Amino acid sequence: MTISWDEETKSILLIDQTSLPTSCRMIRCRTVNRLITAIRRLEVRGAPALGIAGAYGVALAAFSIKLTSFPRYTHRVKNAGFAIGNARPTAVNLSWGVHRVLTKAEDLATSIEEYRRIALMEAQTVAEEDSAACHALGDYGAALLPDTGTILTHCNAGALACREWGTALGIVRSAVASGKNISVIACETRPLLQGARLTAWELKRDGIPVTVIPDSAAAHLMRKDKIDCIIVGADRITRDTVFNKVGTYMHALCAKSHDLPFYVAVPSSTFDSIHAGSEIEIEERERDEVARFSGRITVPDGVPVINPAFDATPLSLVSALVTEKGIISPASDWMQNGKIHRII
Amino acid sequence: MTISWDEETKSILLIDQTSLPTSCRMIRCRTVNRLITAIRRLEVRGAPALGIAGAYGVALAAFSIKLTSFPRYTHRVKNAGFAIGNARPTAVNLSWGVHRVLTKAEDLATSIEEYRRIALMEAQTVAEEDSAACHALGDYGAALLPDTGTILTHCNAGALACREWGTALGIVRSAVASGKNISVIACETRPLLQGARLTAWELKRDGIPVTVIPDSAAAHLMRKDKIDCIIVGADRITRDTVFNKVGTYMHALCAKSHDLPFYVAVPSSTFDSIHAGSEIEIEERERDEVARFSGRITVPDGVPVINPAFDATPLSLVSALVTEKGIISPASDWMQNGKIHRII
Repeated sequence: MTISWDEETKSILLIDQTSLPTSCRMIRCRTVNRLITAIRRLEVRGAPALGIAGAYGVALAAFSIKLTSFPRYTHRVKNAGFAIGNARPTAVNLSWGVHRVLTKAEDLATSIEEYRRIALMEAQTVAEEDSAACHALGDYGAALLPDTGTILTHCNAGALACREWGTALGIVRSAVASGKNISVIACETRPLLQGARLTAWELKRDGIPVTVIPDSAAAHLMRKDKIDCIIVGADRITRDTVFNKVGTYMHALCAKSHDLPFYVAVPSSTFDSIHAGSEIEIEERERDEVARFSGRITVPDGVPVINPAFDATPLSLVSALVTEKGIISPASDWMQNGKIHRII
Repeated sequence: MTISWDEETKSILLIDQTSLPTSCRMIRCRTVNRLITAIRRLEVRGAPALGIAGAYGVALAAFSIKLTSFPRYTHRVKNAGFAIGNARPTAVNLSWGVHRVLTKAEDLATSIEEYRRIALMEAQTVAEEDSAACHALGDYGAALLPDTGTILTHCNAGALACREWGTALGIVRSAVASGKNISVIACETRPLLQGARLTAWELKRDGIPVTVIPDSAAAHLMRKDKIDCIIVGADRITRDTVFNKVGTYMHALCAKSHDLPFYVAVPSSTFDSIHAGSEIEIEERERDEVARFSGRITVPDGVPVINPAFDATPLSLVSALVTEKGIISPASDWMQNGKIHRII
């Protein structure tokens, strides 16, 4: 499991995604600050996993904050929740997970002990719902895939981005489980190589054929008819725009030029019905992610770098959204009367 | 100078492009085998520079082969020339440079001494013509640029890819020299980072503003109106297709989607009027270029990698070809009656 709650020590256990594929080690977060560090360093990443991290984060705050006054206690937990929710700005799931657990505990709890019990129970529900959502959307998406085919994916929208199973890779796993003959081309995903390191690692572990390419080779392989469709995850879907790892937009444009289906696989916690795409801040990450590698200088000192974590893809370029509630196509129809539209 | 002939030691001097930007060191090739190694390792790279390397390579063979029988001597030099020409398969300039010097020496020389003199003279001419071509195409191309603007480029089509000045970056240099206010966005160019390491290094050295981005962020910046046009070099232009560093095709598709001019800057030695694009082999380079970095594993062991050095961009996606003979637009008109069409 990518992220889980350790009942004995009241702490959060994470797979350290920065040390893969060289080693698979676990990180234990005993404090909210350590969790925020883990989120910022991308030791835990992936929109659904961040939702669970946000949810467990409130439970962690609830257990680790030691006060006797209930109003002062809830105030402190809420502040801790806000700090977690703001650790990264673009993925909506993080603050969604925080908000969901805070609201539940605030609404129902009348004592510190009750608050802790309710917060943890709700966080566990968020985690279990994520598993269920991945399996459900995996099954919906699997039906879209050919019996034999090659899927291009970008970054890691896999088991490591969720509690388990995955969104984009959940569809691949469901298709393979249903007997389809599916192989994956994983874009390495500069600068942090989540595709090369994480997607390749988890698919190899599961015996699903995977090949890694430089991000810039994707269009070339589309042109050579080596790719049957593209599936990615997302960090936020607004009324008009998909926010996902930088590179997604380029793949969407190239898929359109080659008449290839471009699917976005997400649990419905990724939907943001309130904002337009233009209102969303795209996280700019630090220069050294691009300018250094393993200590080696790759960009001359003094030369600036632009390193956006995400980009924005208009929903008009998306063939379908695959959610746990069904497939939404055309993607721009996802919201109707302010609610998620269910096709199936 | 990126590549030059050292008269005293009858050897070729190269800037080692694999050690930039950390250090700028020179490599001396005293033998044909060392030159072939330098070409394969990309210690010298860039289509025009490879043309000069091929030309000087024949001169190097002519001076280093010690035989007394003239027929046996010319046979050995020719074989050495073929070996150099085959060191990398995609760039046409390499075998063009070899062929040009071999033909001249074969046609005119009647003794070993004469052969050496003619081969070296022709190689020097190739090198000097490259400088002249870069300055000429730079001036033609500069006229296409706005007075103030940002140019996206991929890989390194700069001074380091030629004898000096550059092709794509030659246009930038000529525009800056003519008083235009031009800045450059350099795609880092995975896997070997020629954009981050080389383009950034040489533009910074010349005081031209340059910013490095991951390759996959280019389309995002086009969408944000941060880019006015795209200029790349090429390794071969056939009747219908531009072969250039992998990623070029993706940039061309994205430029088209954003109605941005997409220029290809080349000396006319890059044209191949004989072949169709489908006949050209795209060099597949080794797995470890993608799977390891500075000794660190980035792709799990056992997972395959596809690592094409180049991709193929249909001429229909190219707004104009910028050559030392003038600007050719539409690009697909470059060949008329089997010859290069001159617009200006």
